[in-house]
Amino acid sequence: MLTALELIGIAVFAASGALAAVRARLDVFGVVVLALTTALGGGIVRDVLLGVHPPAALVTWPYLVVAAGTGVVVFWFHPTVAKLRRSVLLLDAIGLGLFVTAGTSTALRLGAPPYAACLVGVTTGIGGGALRDVLLREIPLVLRREIYAVAALAGAVVVVLGDQLRLPAGLVSITGSALIVGLRLIALWRHWNAPIAPKLDG
Amino acid sequence: MLTALELIGIAVFAASGALAAVRARLDVFGVVVLALTTALGGGIVRDVLLGVHPPAALVTWPYLVVAAGTGVVVFWFHPTVAKLRRSVLLLDAIGLGLFVTAGTSTALRLGAPPYAACLVGVTTGIGGGALRDVLLREIPLVLRREIYAVAALAGAVVVVLGDQLRLPAGLVSITGSALIVGLRLIALWRHWNAPIAPKLDG
Amino acid sequence: MLTALELIGIAVFAASGALAAVRARLDVFGVVVLALTTALGGGIVRDVLLGVHPPAALVTWPYLVVAAGTGVVVFWFHPTVAKLRRSVLLLDAIGLGLFVTAGTSTALRLGAPPYAACLVGVTTGIGGGALRDVLLREIPLVLRREIYAVAALAGAVVVVLGDQLRLPAGLVSITGSALIVGLRLIALWRHWNAPIAPKLDG
Repeated sequence: MLTALELIGIAVFAASGALAAVRARLDVFGVVVLALTTALGGGIVRDVLLGVHPPAALVTWPYLVVAAGTGVVVFWFHPTVAKLRRSVLLLDAIGLGLFVTAGTSTALRLGAPPYAACLVGVTTGIGGGALRDVLLREIPLVLRREIYAVAALAGAVVVVLGDQLRLPAGLVSITGSALIVGLRLIALWRHWNAPIAPKLDG
Repeated sequence: MLTALELIGIAVFAASGALAAVRARLDVFGVVVLALTTALGGGIVRDVLLGVHPPAALVTWPYLVVAAGTGVVVFWFHPTVAKLRRSVLLLDAIGLGLFVTAGTSTALRLGAPPYAACLVGVTTGIGGGALRDVLLREIPLVLRREIYAVAALAGAVVVVLGDQLRLPAGLVSITGSALIVGLRLIALWRHWNAPIAPKLDG
Repeated sequence: MLTALELIGIAVFAASGALAAVRARLDVFGVVVLALTTALGGGIVRDVLLGVHPPAALVTWPYLVVAAGTGVVVFWFHPTVAKLRRSVLLLDAIGLGLFVTAGTSTALRLGAPPYAACLVGVTTGIGGGALRDVLLREIPLVLRREIYAVAALAGAVVVVLGDQLRLPAGLVSITGSALIVGLRLIALWRHWNAPIAPKLDG
């Protein structure tokens, strides 16, 4: 079941990258490349940081098939997908939850200390979207959006605390993911945003 | 001879980075830095993904000398180089062919599975140009141009198939490179482009 | 004492990232993320290139606390910090000096050849600022500013030469850092800039 959830997370992130690429008027190959980058980028950065060679995302063919296939589907059916914006935001929150908790668990398993595991987990969750935005010349949404990084960090902290207290890993991952999804959905619903500094005079 | 071809590939990619930097009004050091990044970036990303430390591009001094020297030459003679645009496009196609097949072969030799080797090879070929464009705030050309990524992928697949069929490695590399160069040149000549999705209403 | 200097370098780079983020109207979390990226990015890239897993910046909690704390302080007191522009430029020069010489020394210690150690050292010094500018959609300042990359390279060469001549490492590091700081300050004071190529006609 975890694998099914992982593939859903990959498909969701691939769809967000593909939609952004369609909007930027890229051709079908650019759309597929951005789908792959967005869906697999966070996990690749995680594995590079942790010294996993080659990164799991490159040697697990179902990941590649799902990400590239999602890119093609979005390219052909993007008006329909764009209409599903609310569903995409929900699925994106689920993807973030799954990627952050999976990234944090992987880092702990490979011997990273707790705070490093949190950072690696958050990077896994937000890295793909940041790459997508940099490639399309946008300031990454995660730096600007409602409580995105903080929701990710909260979920990573839950996984680390659960590991320290030796709670069952599956339960902890589900709790961390649920916290991330919940925070994201409440932030979207209530338009929660973090404070911005007052404008500089100069 | 392969080494000579590699150095030609590096010089060509360095020239493309240096020309772009001159156009963006960078100073001579910025031009050299971009020449190095464009020429060596793809190989460095490949080695980071495959766990080769430190990356070959940093410990092979002829690569550094050729890339930096090309940057300086382009800085001083750039009007002439800019006139050679057709030659640069031809040489760029050759560079792409060499980098993709070399990257794919390296990945196979280090034990990557076939599809991972294809991806690593394509990344080797397009990574340097993507870094160049991101540093200069452009949407990477490889996401927008005539059949660029697909030509790279076709060549990588040839190398992988040749490896599976145990054909002689040199022959396979030359065939793969020739396929990439041929596809790129035909795409440029006929203005082949991949389809773009129709515009979104919203 | 070296550790104290390192933490000062991290704080200075974090402050430069946080100020840039405040100017780009990011919220408090975006500011902290950019402070972390700018302060720790160069060292993380260095460790990824050299195969140090996980990167030292992620497993040394004082680095994280200083970088994130600096981000929060800059967010709340940024008008005061912005007034300190001259001090920030001085501290930034000191940070560059410390990061470049530390990065070069680390690379030599891990067995990189001399020219590779220079490149890795320069990357350590300029990598964080380059990431900061790419995330904020700027052409990296180090590609455009007064003698920035060259000052870094000069300091790295001093460290490598000192290592080859078997001079005491501490003395060499201080000399290299002092050279970088001196070159940067003179360049700022005299508005030294490297030449730019004449404009292209086409």
